[in-house]
Amino acid sequence: MIDVATVGVRAVVILSGGLDSTTCMAVADEKREEIYAVTFAYEQRHFREIEAAKKVAHYYRSFHHIIDLGKVFGASALTSSHLKPETEQQRSTIPLTYVPARNILFLSYALSFAEKVEASKIYIGVNALDNPGYPDCRPEFIDAFQHMIQVGTKSGTEGRGVQIEAPLINWTKAEIIAKAVELEAPLHLTHTCYNGTSPACGICDSCRLRREGFEELGLTDPILYRR
Amino acid sequence: MIDVATVGVRAVVILSGGLDSTTCMAVADEKREEIYAVTFAYEQRHFREIEAAKKVAHYYRSFHHIIDLGKVFGASALTSSHLKPETEQQRSTIPLTYVPARNILFLSYALSFAEKVEASKIYIGVNALDNPGYPDCRPEFIDAFQHMIQVGTKSGTEGRGVQIEAPLINWTKAEIIAKAVELEAPLHLTHTCYNGTSPACGICDSCRLRREGFEELGLTDPILYRR
Repeated sequence: MIDVATVGVRAVVILSGGLDSTTCMAVADEKREEIYAVTFAYEQRHFREIEAAKKVAHYYRSFHHIIDLGKVFGASALTSSHLKPETEQQRSTIPLTYVPARNILFLSYALSFAEKVEASKIYIGVNALDNPGYPDCRPEFIDAFQHMIQVGTKSGTEGRGVQIEAPLINWTKAEIIAKAVELEAPLHLTHTCYNGTSPACGICDSCRLRREGFEELGLTDPILYRR
Repeated sequence: MIDVATVGVRAVVILSGGLDSTTCMAVADEKREEIYAVTFAYEQRHFREIEAAKKVAHYYRSFHHIIDLGKVFGASALTSSHLKPETEQQRSTIPLTYVPARNILFLSYALSFAEKVEASKIYIGVNALDNPGYPDCRPEFIDAFQHMIQVGTKSGTEGRGVQIEAPLINWTKAEIIAKAVELEAPLHLTHTCYNGTSPACGICDSCRLRREGFEELGLTDPILYRR
């Protein structure tokens, strides 16, 4: 059932091209919101995510803004050629794949963009359960960012601050996949693999979590894996 | 007197090349902190600020990182050729020169950079008294951003989050100038004019506030004005 209150509402969706952000696109699309997708290009291995993001944005016929963050990041396994993403066994409290203040920067850009296009929402596909070591994937972080918007922006001080929507934050990977399937999200277009291979490597943490989610639901993942 | 506790501390300074951020450089330099200046290039009229920032960074022999924010901003008099900065008479509650979420974005970048270079502080030259209509120049905003760092970053959750330093936040323009003069900051190298002219226009809000500050102190401003 369509919530008529959200038809025509403008929403910025932070779209990586992976499973979680594509599910956010589906959630916004179901509400008939006018979607402005933003994708961040940075020194990352998995440039295939960007191509996947383009396909997903095209699927939803949404606006799509690709932002090149350049060489801001560096001290991270996701952006350095010297480090490889660690496996779960090697993981300490905070994973090596942590990029300094990544979601803060993504949300800040999305916020500036939202104010520019007069969007009233930003969707971000953060998930606390699958990323227990990432501080910026927790509800406390989203709440703190929201408060900062309320006191630090023109729209916030006028009582109509941009709302951060993190619909997946407390869902398991299986719950995310179930919602995506229910909403007929184009999961065949998504790219999740940390190692950025095509077909996906099938063994990195990101591939493993995705496959386990599909298995739990007894569903077949529409993307290909190397093994 | 040098505070030995701060010698060698790494500090990111958000440096626009204007009077306020140059005073922040002087404050950090007085503490013998190791300065990493960051300057944001965006669709702005006053490209001369960037040149001034380079000169100030060189004066302090600091690292200097210029970040090109590209065409993120737009709906603002500072970035559009269609709008002129309004004078005080035309000013409503929130000035036309407001750039969406500008300081949020600057601080987010500075934060990511700080975590990358292991800096423990970020200086930002925001000032509440001279910018009564800017939500992101108020102490409440700085506090909210600081809280977001504490809960949303690796260093924050480990109890050593990057500290936001806003030393000028409650100073008058005359107090800022007095501090800059006391610390022998290179005010002759700074550029303040909103209209980006050289010599400075002398009549925009930014020029006017600066000139009034010097007049109040009975000092001569070392930069040139058109009138």
